[in-house]
Formats: sequence, C-alpha cells, structure tokens
Amino acid sequence: MAQLIREVFVAAFDTESLRAGDDFARLSVPPGRLVMTTDGYVITPRVFPGGDIGSMAVHGTVNDVAMSGARVLYLTAGFIIEEGLPLADLAAVADSMARAAREAGVAIVTGDTKVVERGGCDGLFITTAGVGVLTDDRLDIAGNRARPGDAVLLNGTIGDHGVAVMSRREGLSFETPILSDSAALNGLVADMVAAVPEIRVLRDPTRGGVAATLNEIADRSGVGVLVREAAVPVRPAVRGACELLGLDPLTVANEGKLIAICPADRAEPLLAVMRAHPLGRDAAVIGEVLDDPDHVVQLETALGGRRVIDWLAGEQLPRIC
Amino acid sequence: MAQLIREVFVAAFDTESLRAGDDFARLSVPPGRLVMTTDGYVITPRVFPGGDIGSMAVHGTVNDVAMSGARVLYLTAGFIIEEGLPLADLAAVADSMARAAREAGVAIVTGDTKVVERGGCDGLFITTAGVGVLTDDRLDIAGNRARPGDAVLLNGTIGDHGVAVMSRREGLSFETPILSDSAALNGLVADMVAAVPEIRVLRDPTRGGVAATLNEIADRSGVGVLVREAAVPVRPAVRGACELLGLDPLTVANEGKLIAICPADRAEPLLAVMRAHPLGRDAAVIGEVLDDPDHVVQLETALGGRRVIDWLAGEQLPRIC
Ligand SMILES: Nc1ncnc2c1ncn2[C@@H]1O[C@H](COP(=O)(O)OP(=O)(O)OP(=O)(O)O)[C@@H](O)[C@H]1O
Ligand SMILES: Nc1ncnc2c1ncn2[C@@H]1O[C@H](COP(=O)(O)OP(=O)(O)OP(=O)(O)O)[C@@H](O)[C@H]1O
Ligand SMILES: [Mg+2]
Ligand SMILES: [Mg+2]
Ligand SMILES: [Mg+2]
Ligand SMILES: [Mg+2]
Ligand SMILES: [Mg+2]
Ligand SMILES: [Mg+2]
Repeated sequence: MAQLIREVFVAAFDTESLRAGDDFARLSVPPGRLVMTTDGYVITPRVFPGGDIGSMAVHGTVNDVAMSGARVLYLTAGFIIEEGLPLADLAAVADSMARAAREAGVAIVTGDTKVVERGGCDGLFITTAGVGVLTDDRLDIAGNRARPGDAVLLNGTIGDHGVAVMSRREGLSFETPILSDSAALNGLVADMVAAVPEIRVLRDPTRGGVAATLNEIADRSGVGVLVREAAVPVRPAVRGACELLGLDPLTVANEGKLIAICPADRAEPLLAVMRAHPLGRDAAVIGEVLDDPDHVVQLETALGGRRVIDWLAGEQLPRIC
Repeated sequence: MAQLIREVFVAAFDTESLRAGDDFARLSVPPGRLVMTTDGYVITPRVFPGGDIGSMAVHGTVNDVAMSGARVLYLTAGFIIEEGLPLADLAAVADSMARAAREAGVAIVTGDTKVVERGGCDGLFITTAGVGVLTDDRLDIAGNRARPGDAVLLNGTIGDHGVAVMSRREGLSFETPILSDSAALNGLVADMVAAVPEIRVLRDPTRGGVAATLNEIADRSGVGVLVREAAVPVRPAVRGACELLGLDPLTVANEGKLIAICPADRAEPLLAVMRAHPLGRDAAVIGEVLDDPDHVVQLETALGGRRVIDWLAGEQLPRIC
C-alpha cells in the first residue's frame, strides 16, 4: 500500500508536502478569507472524450472554489478503489489529475487511499476538497446576490460534457466528435473579477445544466430570470445529438462553463474580458434578471414565444429511500 | 436530493456557511500556516460499540490535523451513498458527525452527496477533509524529527477501537464491554503544545496500531525505537480479547490515541500536562528513541527479553492488483 501510494500518487502529484510523508500538509497562504469546497466523483464511463474521472475531479473542485472569486491554491485527493482495478487504469487517472492540477496552477497536497473488496464499489470513487483565498475585499460573490436588471452571461457553448459522456455510455458516435468541455475556470475568473469586481453571482452549470443553475440562483436571490434562446451558444453537433437523445441542451451538464451575473452597466466590460480569454471566446450575454415573485426562469424562444425552464426537465437524478 | 441535503445534513451540521447555500464556504482564519488533510472512511460494521462511521470520520480527520500541532477549524463532508440505504441510518450518521464536530469545536462547513446504484458501494462511504492553522511559530512537528535519546509517550490504553470493531464484526461479546476509544484529540494536543512546544513528533496510531506508527516514525526519522512492554497501558479486557483473536495489541487500531516524541528532558512536564487532560489520564512514557542504522522498533518484554516489532505483524491490509 505504502509502495502504491509512493509510486502512483506521490510520483504523479509530485508536491513537496506529499514527499514530506506526514499525513498533513503545512502550507503558506496569503491573508484573506479562506474558501473551501468538496465534491465526490462517481462517473461511468471513467474515461470519456475530452477527459476522465481524474481531470474532472480536479476541474470540478477548482471551479467550485473559483466561483467565489477566490484564488484557488490547494487540493486534497481521496481515493476509494475497488480491489482488482487494474493498476494501469489507476496510474492513468493519477497522471490525468496531476496534469489537470498543474495546468490549473494548483497543488495536490495531501491524499488518502482506501481499497474496498471486489463488489464494494464501482471501480473508483474520487473525492477532492479544495481551498482558496479571497484576497480582494471588494468581492462579494454569492448565489443570493442577483438583482432585477442584472445581466446574465455565459462563457461559451453548453451541453458538450453531458453529450460526450452520454454518447460514450450509449456507444453512439457522431460525424463531428463531441468532446467534454471539462476545464479549470480559475484563470478566466481571475481576469473577470480583476476587471469587474462588481460581479454578483458566479456558478458553474454542472449536473442539471444551465436550467438547474439558473433556477437555483432565482430561488436563492428571490428573482426571475429571462434567457434568450438565440443568444445561448450550442455547437451544431451537440444540438443534433440532443435531438437524437431527446435532451434539452439547457439541462445537460457542463464542466468548463460558468454563469456570471453582474449589474447591467458592467456587462460590456465583463463580456470583453471573457472573450479575451481562451475559455471565453464564445462568451455571450444570454439574458437578464427579472423582478418576479414566483422566481421563475423563462426562455424566450427564437420565434419570440416564452416557456418556463423547469428544475429537472432533463436528466433523472438517482433516488434514495 | 436538495431536500435530503437540507433536511438531513444542513439541519444536523447547522453551520452558517451551509445555510448560505453556496457550494463553497467563506471562512475567516487567523494568520499562520495552513494545515490540510483528508481521509476516506469505509468501515464494516457502520455502527460499533463506542462510535460509528460518522463520529470516526470527524475524529480521524480532526486528529490528523491536530498531529501537526495546529488549531483544527473546519471540516468538509463528502458522502457516497448506496441507493436503498435507509434514511434513518443516514440521519443517525449525520447526527453522530454533528455531535462529534460540536464536541471537538470544529465546524462542518461544506459537503457533497452522491447516490450510486444499488451494488455500487457498500452502503456508505464518507470522505472528510480538515483544515487548521498553525499560529505558534515555534512548533515544528513532523514524522522525521525524532532524535536518539528522545522520549516516547502515549496518552492511554491501546487496542480498544480495533477490538471493539472486530468483536462486533465477529459477533463476539465479552463480560466487560469493550468500547472504541474514538475521540477528538485536538483539545489534548492544544494543552500539550502550549506546555511543551519542543514536541518533535505527534502521530495517531490508527490502522496498524502503535507498531505501524512507530515503524513509520523510525523509518522517516532514520532512528530506532525501544518500547517497554510493561509501560504500555492495555485494558485487561482488551488483552483477553486479543489473546482470543490471536492479535498483538500493538498492531490493533486506535482512534483516540497519540504517540508523542519529545526531548528526554521535556518528558516529565509533557506527561504531567497529558495526565491532567481527560483523554490522557492513563498517559505513560513507553520508551525511547535509539541510534540505530537499521531503524528497528524493538520491544523489551516484561521478562527483560527483546523482540522486533514488525510493520504488519497484525492485520492484513486489502490488496490491489
Ligand atoms: N491518493 C493519494 N494521493 C496523494 N497522497 C496520498 C494518497 N493516498 C495516501 N496519500 C498520502 O500517503 C500517506 C499515507 O496515507 P494513508 O491514508 O495510507 O495513511 P493514514 O491516513 O495515516 O491512514 P488511514 O487513512 O488508514 O487513517 C499520507 O501522507 C497521505 O497524504
Ligand atoms: N453531505 C452534505 N453535508 C453538508 N452539506 C452538503 C452535503 N451534500 C451537499 N451539501 C451542500 O449542499 C449544496 C448542494 O450540494 P450538491 O453536491 O448537490 O451540489 P453541487 O456540488 O453543485 O453539485 P455536484 O456535486 O453534482 O457538482 C452545497 O452547498 C453543498 O455544500
Ligand atoms: Mg460542487
Ligand atoms: Mg459546482
Ligand atoms: Mg489516509
Ligand atoms: Mg489519515
Ligand atoms: Mg491518522
Ligand atoms: Mg457537490
């Protein structure tokens, strides 16, 4: 076990605190408010076009910290491994995590490995926790701060991740290969908050897609949201696949997208800084925040009609009894 | 799902950052070095005499942070739940975590819930990450700092946790009920480092017991260790159960114990402050650090003989291929 940890994880993640070999990491942080988050990653298939469970476990948690406006600094990596998982698969996931972390400029500083009996888990579960520091006192970014009149922005095309995963799962292939958009958004966010510290809400539309995220924001902030369908970027191949699979792109998961809400008069400079970043080239203002006592999210269709975008119009979530 | 999270987890953990409903927690921390750790908890049975998976997931991670000498501040809680787990079981675990965190004076500030298909996981896995802050610049506590001549201290009886769990697993019962020693050691450690900042090593002898922990320290520090058997506190009931189960108490897991190593001339004041704390009443100096190029851990038996204490003399760890 100690050998496995050393040769697979410590070798891949290659950070000083892991080499020190204590079961804690001692780290320096700039002064400011600390930001923490955690997520577990349980995805089938483990490898999909454009990423794998390892890159997702880094991107997802980096993004959750980044959605506070904080500088993302450190990650923990907890592995639960089913006995019999091929060592090569595990090493590939560790390498993918290491690469994703390096590219995002964050360090994986401590971890854990548990091996469970065959049948005890579905191959591999990863839980990452992330910390960052809010050094800019002007920032106050939270899900309850959207106000009527605010602009709603999105950094690019939606649905890529969910369609990439689902088509691999269903064994579908398309003329144009569809890749997950999985990416670390902390660099983009750093540019955004530096230029427009007035940003009120940032949120990554992952599970449940843009539909779920906007409903959550509407609910937390006590507002309505209007989205203009024509303004929402969707790749033609993704649109085609969604039609085939019977999905609404608005409800499909993304792993490299963010929704930003800011005062209307700050939308132009925010859009400009987003478009100047490689992960925001297709950024757009997709709608606005409304005064609505029912906290409804509406879609204005290309034809000018309106329909309500519901919470769970798309994917079913697993139940627990 | 949102309802489950609100009614079970947010209600139990009852912290401000969870109520805020963002997927990150914003926290204030005193200046100092940050300490982070993580562990996954996968234990059968989930409930055992003296604790359950929830209290363990708090105590284990609090203790790992505390072993740096840091003040333990915040925890994350990641749940992976098998579909079909009774809601009452889940709520009991959440309540137990909440109680353990409250008693330890730490806050569970953010979390995650994933539900996997029946058969996808063994009921319930919990991964916690913990952060603390090292505010005292004099402290430099790490596994590689033991020096020949140092004293080795232990805060109480060994083997209680492992025997409690194993006897529940095997359906054994004893005249004297044996309870897990699972406890948060951060309060004890705070007293210890305040009184004796010269402490060189702190480590909690969990999986693999005192034997594994001392071997790890010997290895990291490049020293030998001598343990005096007669000085190691073991409850008679635990000793009896170990004989029955064919176990050496030195290799059995603990969840509320720590090994402390300090310069010999600081052993007396350290022992005094340990004994003054409820979790250190049975504290003892159990041995000393030796100059030994082979980094061996030896036991001096009650009869005066010596034998080597090996790495994995006891429990088998699961394999991965
Ligand atoms: N997947 C991993 N990635 C990075 N580091 C890891 C990983 N697993 C373990 N480590 C590191 O290896 C060391 C030993 O970890 P391990 O979990 O085996 O010990 P432990 O936490 O003391 O034991 P336990 O988890 O049984 O309580 C620690 O320094 C830990 O940070
Ligand atoms: N077990 C838990 N304990 C405490 N808080 C939790 C727990 N599970 C979720 N939460 C909190 O509930 C909110 C929603 O969590 P959830 O994991 O469903 O959302 P998410 O992380 O955005 O989605 P995903 O995990 O699919 O990426 C977050 O604020 C999170 O901190
Ligand atoms: Mg999340
Ligand atoms: Mg998220
Ligand atoms: Mg561990
Ligand atoms: Mg640990
Ligand atoms: Mg430990
Ligand atoms: Mg989550």
